[in-house]
Amino acid sequence: MSDPRPIGVFDSGMGGLTVLRELIRALPDESFIYLGDTARLPYGTKSADTVRRYAQQAAAALVARGVKMVVIACNTASISSAAVAELLAPLPVLGVIAPGAKAALAAAPDGPVAVIATETTVKGGAYRAAIRALGSDIPIVQQACPLFVPLAEEGLVEGPIVEAIVARYLGPVLESMPRPKAILLGCTHYPALKGAIAKVAGPEIALVDSAKTAADAVAATLREKGITNSGGAAALSFLATDAPDRFARAGAIFLGQPIDPGAVELIDLQ
Amino acid sequence: MSDPRPIGVFDSGMGGLTVLRELIRALPDESFIYLGDTARLPYGTKSADTVRRYAQQAAAALVARGVKMVVIACNTASISSAAVAELLAPLPVLGVIAPGAKAALAAAPDGPVAVIATETTVKGGAYRAAIRALGSDIPIVQQACPLFVPLAEEGLVEGPIVEAIVARYLGPVLESMPRPKAILLGCTHYPALKGAIAKVAGPEIALVDSAKTAADAVAATLREKGITNSGGAAALSFLATDAPDRFARAGAIFLGQPIDPGAVELIDLQ
Repeated sequence: MSDPRPIGVFDSGMGGLTVLRELIRALPDESFIYLGDTARLPYGTKSADTVRRYAQQAAAALVARGVKMVVIACNTASISSAAVAELLAPLPVLGVIAPGAKAALAAAPDGPVAVIATETTVKGGAYRAAIRALGSDIPIVQQACPLFVPLAEEGLVEGPIVEAIVARYLGPVLESMPRPKAILLGCTHYPALKGAIAKVAGPEIALVDSAKTAADAVAATLREKGITNSGGAAALSFLATDAPDRFARAGAIFLGQPIDPGAVELIDLQ
Repeated sequence: MSDPRPIGVFDSGMGGLTVLRELIRALPDESFIYLGDTARLPYGTKSADTVRRYAQQAAAALVARGVKMVVIACNTASISSAAVAELLAPLPVLGVIAPGAKAALAAAPDGPVAVIATETTVKGGAYRAAIRALGSDIPIVQQACPLFVPLAEEGLVEGPIVEAIVARYLGPVLESMPRPKAILLGCTHYPALKGAIAKVAGPEIALVDSAKTAADAVAATLREKGITNSGGAAALSFLATDAPDRFARAGAIFLGQPIDPGAVELIDLQ
């Protein structure tokens, strides 16, 4: 049995392309449709209610295009995984929060773990809940870093300005006692700033990002449900709610490969 | 004749409250309804087409509430003034671009003028066109400053990080020859960073913001159309498309007076 239907992946914008990159690497026989809600980004400063509504609309648009599974490649939107899963049942839905929590525990089994993420993700405490759901009671500190997304989107990812902003946010985290053994990059944009974060955090703290663990979890789900694609041409297409040209140009940095502007379709979500 | 209907004012978020502040000061007998499209901010990184659609939806929502005039208190959305005016005719519509252009010429009649604004405003060249439309051929340089809005919204408006970011954007502007005599703050968020901008630009360059000139233009339009309110209680109410509590809290800084969270109504735009 082989299931050639594509896997739907969505994010508020381009950050989720770091997750798509790992998915393509882990699942070279699968086709993917990526949706970036660029007309309404960012999600991370918006309320949980609004983010849930946007996530449900994005998931519905992917389902309308015949996907066999939906991956929420955005930490902020992943707080709505349950609401999206309810809407899409019995189609499998996977967010990045649970895989991220698992990766953080693998890197620092006894903690402490620092979670850095958007305001809305931190406020919702989803990573803390996911780590607790894995049966761990390690110490967890959380820190919102609202300027990281605009920095990454402008491509300003290293140098003194970036390090000063990283130090501003990480200061309280690094001074918390006991000192964190791992920092979980709880936003798909943050790996773009990994160099600057590592410089400020120092070599003793592991930086964990959820993209790779999320790809492993998707592979496991496909096997479990018997919906892997065992052969045939793997296709890659993109949907954006604003400025497809800009998406193709700026997105290539996050995806790590060029994006053909002609492969990006402009759609409206409502 | 007295017209007690409110004046509608809208912006992508909270920056336009700096314009509302000047409007209240200039027109104490008028009532205002302010709409912040907080669920879809920022506008400044989105395409002109999407911004036009959002501006038309916001203006229509204000008209549905019985306003006598619409003020587009957002520079990026002001590039859509003509499209909004067409939709709302014969209701008067006023953006901040033309008043800003007038204020810049008053500050530096022979130029050169530097316009700093969002990516979309700079790309559209609206200020250049508005200055030319006033019959002036002074030299104009433009510079997009995409990080200013997130900095202002996080309340990070002074200190070494902000000055380094200001210097990064203003460097090419200050080195352009001949040196600008005025910098036009072409985004309603930018006055929040005025101190840091002044420090980097130095005392010889005038900083111009369009809020006061825009308020004068609104007053002139009301008189011209014979729709001023000469008496009665002036009311102030707010609409936001996301997170009314956050709007009330953060908006108070831009408005310069407290906002009662109970006076902020959550609405949906489509």
